[in-house]
Amino acid sequence: MNEQLRLENVRLVLMRLEETIIFSLIERAQFKHNDVIYKADAFGGVLEGESLVGFLLLECERSQAKVRRFTSPDEHPFHADLPEPILPPLRYEENPLLPNDINFNARVRDVYEKEIVPRVCAGGDDGQYGSSSVCDVSCLQALSRRVHYGKFVAESKFRARPREYGSAIAAGDRDALLGLLSDPVVEKEVLQRVDLKTRTYGRDPVSKESVSRLESQVVVDLYSRWVIPLNKEVQVAYLLSRDTTRTS
Amino acid sequence: MNEQLRLENVRLVLMRLEETIIFSLIERAQFKHNDVIYKADAFGGVLEGESLVGFLLLECERSQAKVRRFTSPDEHPFHADLPEPILPPLRYEENPLLPNDINFNARVRDVYEKEIVPRVCAGGDDGQYGSSSVCDVSCLQALSRRVHYGKFVAESKFRARPREYGSAIAAGDRDALLGLLSDPVVEKEVLQRVDLKTRTYGRDPVSKESVSRLESQVVVDLYSRWVIPLNKEVQVAYLLSRDTTRTS
Repeated sequence: MNEQLRLENVRLVLMRLEETIIFSLIERAQFKHNDVIYKADAFGGVLEGESLVGFLLLECERSQAKVRRFTSPDEHPFHADLPEPILPPLRYEENPLLPNDINFNARVRDVYEKEIVPRVCAGGDDGQYGSSSVCDVSCLQALSRRVHYGKFVAESKFRARPREYGSAIAAGDRDALLGLLSDPVVEKEVLQRVDLKTRTYGRDPVSKESVSRLESQVVVDLYSRWVIPLNKEVQVAYLLSRDTTRTS
Repeated sequence: MNEQLRLENVRLVLMRLEETIIFSLIERAQFKHNDVIYKADAFGGVLEGESLVGFLLLECERSQAKVRRFTSPDEHPFHADLPEPILPPLRYEENPLLPNDINFNARVRDVYEKEIVPRVCAGGDDGQYGSSSVCDVSCLQALSRRVHYGKFVAESKFRARPREYGSAIAAGDRDALLGLLSDPVVEKEVLQRVDLKTRTYGRDPVSKESVSRLESQVVVDLYSRWVIPLNKEVQVAYLLSRDTTRTS
């Protein structure tokens, strides 16, 4: 079996992404909400119709597209019409996923801007628009990677139980698929882990009485309400798009 | 006195930057050295004569220049000839620094690529060129901000003791300035703090027997050998460029 698809390897990637997400959110939490950076055309219409965050994300994706970021099966852009790579194609190890164009980034961005930022940041405006937006780009890219890694999870689970998944896919039965791929024990472990990690990384270890820079409950909620459900939606979408005639 | 210049506020900024630097280095340490990303023209000369890291840094600075990052007195670009801002100028609170064009980023980049990356990362090549380069851009920008914040430190110290600094500046006496601005007790506290912070943030709190993702001694060395000395060099350069006839 492809090493990338071993379920323990997939889980190691997801666990390591917890640090990336928590670190990025702690960085963002330095600054206030700064709502204006999420409003399209708030800065006089010079940002290609985008908000400040959207514009910096677009510019960042253009640069990264040139160096072929989005040719990797675990990366998904937020914007369309990006430039072609200027680097020659990299030969990835055999891509274990089936061809698909599943991209949940519109949802990821919507949830991030409307639900997550207001919980992570203090309300108000501190004028730190550029710094906040740079942090937002990191948070969005980390969350996108976490959510879309569901494709690898799903392919891994499918290959372990092709018959059960195959019949649910053939029947187009989303509920059956959700039941098959859900693992409440693992989900509970994820929440316990992000709770402990946020409490550890969010507090200055030097001054013991320091206030946490990021409430661990915010990260637990973010995982339980959005990250895990969106990841499972990606899994279902990927499985339903799967060609069941392909042997594993 | 300008609030931004109160020495305790300057030190709070520097302390908070320790998290930013340590988080960025932990992220970079996920990947191997990947030496090829630091070699200009390693990718066939399509990257404007830059290495992959240099190209992504240039592209990032171009985007950020458009949204006026480098009009802020605490931000310094690595590249020249960046685009003009497309946003209208932001009125910063009175910039407390004297006009100057001190920029140590060539040194920061050289030290980062030659000294820091080989200590932070395992040797070898894992093919994760894009991910490594994105982390490098974050590390470089955080280190640059830390080093150049010496300008605020120096202005703050000058205003507290204008006569002592004034005569050393008038005499062009670098050693006297270094003596005046150095504070061995504070420097020792910085090293103790980054040691404890790296040990706390670098280790997975869930599996107690886990290996640290980043050796704390590497960060202590990085601070004692480069961050603190370069910050002090910035302070000296800023003080020597200071117009001593200006009253504080």
